[in-house]
Amino acid sequence: MSASIKNADIPRVGAGTPGGTWLRRYWLPVSRSDEIFDIPKSVKVLGEELVLFRAESGELGLVGQDCPHRGASLEYADVEANGIRCPYHGWLFDVNGNCLEQPSEVKGKEFCWKVRQKAYPTKELGGLVFAYLGPDRSDPPALPNYSPLVDHGGTRMHEPVRYFDYNWFNFFENSADPAHVWILHGESAYGNGSWGSRFFDAKNPPDFEPVETDYGLKIVLSKPAHDKNGFVIDEMSLAFPSILQIGDTEFVHGNADPADLDSRGSNYEHFMFITPCDDQSFMMFTVDYYTGPQSDFFERLKELRKKEIPKHNVKEYDQRPLMPFRGNVRTEDIVTQGTQKLLGDRKEHLGTADRGIIMLRRMVRTAIEDAMLGRTPKGADLSAGKDGIVRIDSFVGLRDSL
Amino acid sequence: MSASIKNADIPRVGAGTPGGTWLRRYWLPVSRSDEIFDIPKSVKVLGEELVLFRAESGELGLVGQDCPHRGASLEYADVEANGIRCPYHGWLFDVNGNCLEQPSEVKGKEFCWKVRQKAYPTKELGGLVFAYLGPDRSDPPALPNYSPLVDHGGTRMHEPVRYFDYNWFNFFENSADPAHVWILHGESAYGNGSWGSRFFDAKNPPDFEPVETDYGLKIVLSKPAHDKNGFVIDEMSLAFPSILQIGDTEFVHGNADPADLDSRGSNYEHFMFITPCDDQSFMMFTVDYYTGPQSDFFERLKELRKKEIPKHNVKEYDQRPLMPFRGNVRTEDIVTQGTQKLLGDRKEHLGTADRGIIMLRRMVRTAIEDAMLGRTPKGADLSAGKDGIVRIDSFVGLRDSL
Amino acid sequence: MSASIKNADIPRVGAGTPGGTWLRRYWLPVSRSDEIFDIPKSVKVLGEELVLFRAESGELGLVGQDCPHRGASLEYADVEANGIRCPYHGWLFDVNGNCLEQPSEVKGKEFCWKVRQKAYPTKELGGLVFAYLGPDRSDPPALPNYSPLVDHGGTRMHEPVRYFDYNWFNFFENSADPAHVWILHGESAYGNGSWGSRFFDAKNPPDFEPVETDYGLKIVLSKPAHDKNGFVIDEMSLAFPSILQIGDTEFVHGNADPADLDSRGSNYEHFMFITPCDDQSFMMFTVDYYTGPQSDFFERLKELRKKEIPKHNVKEYDQRPLMPFRGNVRTEDIVTQGTQKLLGDRKEHLGTADRGIIMLRRMVRTAIEDAMLGRTPKGADLSAGKDGIVRIDSFVGLRDSL
Repeated sequence: MSASIKNADIPRVGAGTPGGTWLRRYWLPVSRSDEIFDIPKSVKVLGEELVLFRAESGELGLVGQDCPHRGASLEYADVEANGIRCPYHGWLFDVNGNCLEQPSEVKGKEFCWKVRQKAYPTKELGGLVFAYLGPDRSDPPALPNYSPLVDHGGTRMHEPVRYFDYNWFNFFENSADPAHVWILHGESAYGNGSWGSRFFDAKNPPDFEPVETDYGLKIVLSKPAHDKNGFVIDEMSLAFPSILQIGDTEFVHGNADPADLDSRGSNYEHFMFITPCDDQSFMMFTVDYYTGPQSDFFERLKELRKKEIPKHNVKEYDQRPLMPFRGNVRTEDIVTQGTQKLLGDRKEHLGTADRGIIMLRRMVRTAIEDAMLGRTPKGADLSAGKDGIVRIDSFVGLRDSL
Repeated sequence: MSASIKNADIPRVGAGTPGGTWLRRYWLPVSRSDEIFDIPKSVKVLGEELVLFRAESGELGLVGQDCPHRGASLEYADVEANGIRCPYHGWLFDVNGNCLEQPSEVKGKEFCWKVRQKAYPTKELGGLVFAYLGPDRSDPPALPNYSPLVDHGGTRMHEPVRYFDYNWFNFFENSADPAHVWILHGESAYGNGSWGSRFFDAKNPPDFEPVETDYGLKIVLSKPAHDKNGFVIDEMSLAFPSILQIGDTEFVHGNADPADLDSRGSNYEHFMFITPCDDQSFMMFTVDYYTGPQSDFFERLKELRKKEIPKHNVKEYDQRPLMPFRGNVRTEDIVTQGTQKLLGDRKEHLGTADRGIIMLRRMVRTAIEDAMLGRTPKGADLSAGKDGIVRIDSFVGLRDSL
Repeated sequence: MSASIKNADIPRVGAGTPGGTWLRRYWLPVSRSDEIFDIPKSVKVLGEELVLFRAESGELGLVGQDCPHRGASLEYADVEANGIRCPYHGWLFDVNGNCLEQPSEVKGKEFCWKVRQKAYPTKELGGLVFAYLGPDRSDPPALPNYSPLVDHGGTRMHEPVRYFDYNWFNFFENSADPAHVWILHGESAYGNGSWGSRFFDAKNPPDFEPVETDYGLKIVLSKPAHDKNGFVIDEMSLAFPSILQIGDTEFVHGNADPADLDSRGSNYEHFMFITPCDDQSFMMFTVDYYTGPQSDFFERLKELRKKEIPKHNVKEYDQRPLMPFRGNVRTEDIVTQGTQKLLGDRKEHLGTADRGIIMLRRMVRTAIEDAMLGRTPKGADLSAGKDGIVRIDSFVGLRDSL
């Protein structure tokens, strides 16, 4: 079906590339709302150099970084009531890229109507600024009301934005690969008696299956329930093109009582929104949403996370640049994903345990082909529930059957 | 006429490029005289790696950096009576690139006559070392007696050499664009009641016209005189290929009384000699010449310049790398020109206010075509006045008519 | 004979290049033995990214850096009893690149037999780890018992490994060029009355001739003996592909009595094993072997070397990056070789004094051609003496005739 699209097409994000054509069919977060001040912010998204700003009117603008007049950088523009003004000759642009003023021209000689700066639609939701870099910018698809970004009675927490200097897909596909959890992370953050130590034991790992969903796919991990009928379930969800929901975070990193799982499941959503900057770097917006009873949940999580800082003493002769990395899921991920070359530039031997990876790549290749043929790629038209919320389901708990 | 030469040809300076062919028809400064010591100085000019030295005899040499014997760098050569000696095998080269000695060869086996190191003619004038990298090096054109470099009863002041890491033409063509002065620089160095505040007021800017001259072009700015007949005039001059004279510096940055303009005009010449190092960097030699009555003129200018250091507090969240920049004409220029991509690599929308830029580029394209066809390009054979001095006129003052 | 191989082919070392094909026919040192700990060591050899490790069993392994499963770096692998284990999914590889375990796969689904990691044979000798990156890895040629690495009654001393950021051949061919010794190094380490001052006097230099040997070539320097019949001899030996033996080190840097030469010759071997990392860098393993009577020879040598640290005051205005360099043979070499461009990328004028260089290059081109045609290149099958030792002879002393 997607015979013409190769794995090597997936990690490239630039305009006109197959992967870039696909990624441009979705809204992607480009900043936290609270990191936009009264100055333009330079952001690189899918290989494009842009500036993001909030006009004094409150409107957000995301426009090309180079001024269309003579090419000076709008990163140093002044933010004004309705837009930004280039410092070089004072041309004023609104959030839609329209040129409003050309004070360098004498009255009557202006040609604002001839000038159009590249501009992308933006929308704010739950503390993030999303942008749409695709076709039909005047009529973009709806921004999904992703559950952790829409108030529904809990507490939302944004982590600091993280920046990575390797290809985004290395991170994304890692979540379709559950085997690495009990091997790479087998000894991290999984204290004795914890849910992690019960479920992600390398000696007795869970079974798993990748399952296609409307938003993408999820990896369903399962183990026969201990002393009960049924199965303990854990899910990792991958929503197209680049969103992750890891269901067990409350139990693994929040250190919730694993016995609770059987009765209540999770009170917690852990979302990672990945936005590629270019082929070699990406940024990540992590949003947590907690609906449980503990009023100090996030304070406790913070304390628990601190204990996951790699603390192994590094031997004197150990000069390896990424040491130490063991003892923290995130540094363990960076040492492995971050040293992989781009998909397509590396040699691989995939096995049965890689069936999640294999299925993900096949689905992405299909989605890329759809995007290139002008069809709607998977996950680009997610429908909301009755409450208007789009959920990337990621179940953790007990089920009678698989 | 110059249909085959494109704007994209202008900023490239390497040997064999159209722009490089043109620039090689003129003398260009490569160092201040007082920055040559008893060691070779590595200089990059028009993309060529060279070393500059003064032999003990006093003669200047500008030769290729790589020794023609086995390619070791002559930057580490020893300066001797008549030339420089490579440290590797002791070959000695005179300032003309002749090989004088080959001590690694036994007597009688030398082949100095077969070896010729690249060498360019140099000349010193008024504290600068000029070089000619063009054809006919044994019979180069005359080095013009540029007025600020030839004593004529005033005081000369050299600024420290400035190095820029963007394309030279961004800087040069900026002076053909007067509109940026009252917009970008509108609030810098133009105190209340100053000539700048009177003439470069963004609300009531002067009119301007580019005018072709023998040396290149000048931008003639004009405003009806206040309470008088006639016009107040200000000129910015661009001499081919890369010299700027800004007439009003005494009144703007020297803070001279603007009323003086009407009676006496300027006592001051402000020259900037631009020498491209390569496509991405250039150096600038700034020479001031003052013929007025104030014995402490340059001390006062220095104090005034100090006040132009950007002093705005930068907000805590403002991490933009070139901040602060406002309040100083030079940092304002760097933030705008320095973020422009190379001419030809950027998209532009030019208007009536850009007529100076448009005319300059057209003239440069013609000059490049002339150089490529072996004709003498504009400004390469400037004739001196009766006093033997070549003047890049740049008038500031009152004129009865335009 | 080797018409198709050009000088420009010599410095390139990558797999598939002519020069790389040649270099892959020899054992090359890749580490000191005592710099391998219980962690993998990242090494770049002939452009290939590898990791070197010693399994707990004691066996050495040199394997490709990228894990063949999904490409994570084995630099962060764990060293185990029989090999190294990738941190990502726990695949275990032995020193031969065999995959021993795939714990990410469920029992019965492993496919170890399908996976083979790149692995190169290694051997330790006299404190160095050698590797063979060539064809026939299951049956590589014998590692020569180079004399300084095989115990024969003296004292061995390894210098710290040196890393250089220029092409390896610049260093190697420098030893086929004796004229640079009395010119570049003429004033370094050659105190009054020393052997160096007697033999390497620029005003009265020795004669020299390059002589082909079984291992490569040597430069035989000679001078009529003072007050005696016969000739004083000094030799510099270049063993293919990249080993140097400088015979006079004891007399020059060890400051031994030059009169001793006439009676006893040298008690000292000074070997430099060069291993190219890539086209732009190489590492060097320096091994000294002393068989003379002084029990504190290496302590004294160390003290004498300290006096060779460049001590010239650098003038305040001298900003050249490699200053100071005079007064030490090694920094003098770096300033000259290290500023040469790659052979083939630089222009040269060679003379009679360069006959060693010319002969070396010709021999290397022939060896490259031999390697490319599947023949055994020069020096790849060195035969040992009766004592089993391979000697790169490098005589210093008195001879009756040349």
